[in-house]
Amino acid sequence: MIDVEKIRQDFPMFKNHVKMHDHDLVYLDNNATTLKPQCVADAVYGYLTEYTSNAERGDYDLSHIVDTKFEGAREDVRRFIGAKDKRELIFTAGSTDSLNMVAYGYALHHLKEGDEILLSLAEHASNTLPWFDVAKMTGAKIKYIDLDEKGAITIENVKKAITDKTKIIALAIVTNVMGYVIPIHEITALAHKQNIVVVCDGAQSVPHIKTDVVADDIDFLAFSGHKMCGPTGIGVLYGKMALLEDMKPVRYGGGSNARYEADGELSLKSIPYRFESGTPNIEGVIGLGAAACYLESIGIENIHAYEIELRKYAIEKLKQVDKVELYNPEATGAIAMNIKGVFSQDASSLFNTYGIAVRAGNHCAKILKDFLHVNATVRASLYFYNTKEDIDTFVEVCKKGDDFLDAFFG
Amino acid sequence: MIDVEKIRQDFPMFKNHVKMHDHDLVYLDNNATTLKPQCVADAVYGYLTEYTSNAERGDYDLSHIVDTKFEGAREDVRRFIGAKDKRELIFTAGSTDSLNMVAYGYALHHLKEGDEILLSLAEHASNTLPWFDVAKMTGAKIKYIDLDEKGAITIENVKKAITDKTKIIALAIVTNVMGYVIPIHEITALAHKQNIVVVCDGAQSVPHIKTDVVADDIDFLAFSGHKMCGPTGIGVLYGKMALLEDMKPVRYGGGSNARYEADGELSLKSIPYRFESGTPNIEGVIGLGAAACYLESIGIENIHAYEIELRKYAIEKLKQVDKVELYNPEATGAIAMNIKGVFSQDASSLFNTYGIAVRAGNHCAKILKDFLHVNATVRASLYFYNTKEDIDTFVEVCKKGDDFLDAFFG
Repeated sequence: MIDVEKIRQDFPMFKNHVKMHDHDLVYLDNNATTLKPQCVADAVYGYLTEYTSNAERGDYDLSHIVDTKFEGAREDVRRFIGAKDKRELIFTAGSTDSLNMVAYGYALHHLKEGDEILLSLAEHASNTLPWFDVAKMTGAKIKYIDLDEKGAITIENVKKAITDKTKIIALAIVTNVMGYVIPIHEITALAHKQNIVVVCDGAQSVPHIKTDVVADDIDFLAFSGHKMCGPTGIGVLYGKMALLEDMKPVRYGGGSNARYEADGELSLKSIPYRFESGTPNIEGVIGLGAAACYLESIGIENIHAYEIELRKYAIEKLKQVDKVELYNPEATGAIAMNIKGVFSQDASSLFNTYGIAVRAGNHCAKILKDFLHVNATVRASLYFYNTKEDIDTFVEVCKKGDDFLDAFFG
Repeated sequence: MIDVEKIRQDFPMFKNHVKMHDHDLVYLDNNATTLKPQCVADAVYGYLTEYTSNAERGDYDLSHIVDTKFEGAREDVRRFIGAKDKRELIFTAGSTDSLNMVAYGYALHHLKEGDEILLSLAEHASNTLPWFDVAKMTGAKIKYIDLDEKGAITIENVKKAITDKTKIIALAIVTNVMGYVIPIHEITALAHKQNIVVVCDGAQSVPHIKTDVVADDIDFLAFSGHKMCGPTGIGVLYGKMALLEDMKPVRYGGGSNARYEADGELSLKSIPYRFESGTPNIEGVIGLGAAACYLESIGIENIHAYEIELRKYAIEKLKQVDKVELYNPEATGAIAMNIKGVFSQDASSLFNTYGIAVRAGNHCAKILKDFLHVNATVRASLYFYNTKEDIDTFVEVCKKGDDFLDAFFG
């Protein structure tokens, strides 16, 4: 298991006792973004102050240092997700950018009228809206895999949803509100029997559970740096080489072409460079590499086991609070809940006055309301640097019924 | 005028005497990327270590700090380019992303078969290749404005190139190799008489010369943070509000939509948020804001005047070196040159051994060869932190004829 007190010393925001309203910060908004360890901040700062230069472009020593660190980070991230070949990792601006790249670069050129794209009602907007648009452009249809009574996706319901017109299944491996892990291994096995491409939103899974794109036979995987202790503005699109060879860039510019002529003739560079037009987020890439190494040093299995334990502890305590309504007690990701009779935004404002950061609202999963029948929830999302004391503080504030009304009318 | 020695103390890489091959760094690759002042590194580091949280999403104090800084940066950058309204600034991943956004988000939906897009042979790949693709998709035609004998764009040649089918003129205000300033004010006046939209690549102009999008009546302006002392992975697309209202997002996801339904119904947020899907490059935005304020504190007019003086000094000295071939002595931007009889890449390798960072190759302007009739050049590009001593060192190495051959055969 992990030594959480030792780990917290790696994070400047804990080490320096950052406060909100005179309380030590209880950060429970990890599904929105995660805090950064010193090594990530140092990696970013190092690029900005010690060896600044552009990547993949120069012929001098500084640029060689950058190239080595840049491609080293690609290798670190490759290892982190178990990919075979680092060329299968494209650096993007984040999960949203990655998912749009698959939608507009791949799906748009492979779908035709009547084809079906399978989603779920629990998906994030970034794994919904690009598909809406591509469906409109191609005449393909969006269909939804039914969630079970808990809000999870089962292999049986995937089976039921697949037809001979299904061409793409796009699902979060762990959804950002409901927090259930999908049976990805079974889903890809089933899908590949009829050449369905499986696009995974890994934004909420890669930081928390072991990812192995080869063992799980994942076709495309999108994830973000900032949700796994890395910088913002950087993410990855993993794709199987054969699929990437069939994908069109969504951005053209410097760095991605080998040659072009005034008459429009164009030869692209090899994969992944053809998809990385323009100066990349260099310190973002280097910081993401540092984040992957940091998580690896703790062990993603240890992280997951600790989070499961912490979540169980939280759920048991929350169940004892009458005014708490829990929507996904059995999941493994975020805790979705409400304080009965209190608007979620009012609740989060009160939590704030006790130094607790939680998120309120629909969490960019705006059609989940069709399943949950509530428009907004309070979402408490944990990471490996949270403690049982964090949970205790959170639960104590949940009990403060009158204060919620004060916050509401105050 | 500016105090360059004082300014150099603002830059950790100069302050700490970063070396290449035991020589103090002479950094002359500023058109590729610029070094970062302490205030920018601190702004980025501050976000990562003191007040990490997501932007535009939370209800707690940390997220309010982020929102204030994030939108404050938008205001700082607005002021820097003279825009009327900060909502006209969209944060992107960089100039390349910005130009692709105009091409695929705006032009693709406004061009039809036979329409004409005017470019020049001196454009960067990022202001060429997206237009090639959009032309192919719409049936529009790419035409080139003739460069004059020096390699510059004159208003006369723009006039000659415009026909009644011209719909878009896309030009760098200062090109990255030839380095001439286009007569942007006259070009927009001419273009707007027949409703031509003028798209400006400001990557090499915004960091160096006063930009006033209102006075110059610019329709779209793309630029990058990292070429103006800011972080990488962050840039801006400025667009007139009326044009942005007519632009489609190129990425969909969280943060950009107001509401959507399972049946595909979608309401977008207001401008600029509808174009900023996904967690933005938060520390990039905050760092860019710091960079704009830093340049403003020195004064962009002072920067420009100093660079002009420094360039003149360099050109006069280089003209006295027989083996130097100069391609753009009269320009104001980068110095494009070659050492006679030496491959540009060999030249840059030799410069490296003297601690000098210059760029060799085609500099992502791969059709410029049709004008210059050389495939590759050495590009020395200056910024306000360069000194006359930098130039002296560079010129001395240019004189080392035999050493170039050593580098070549070594």
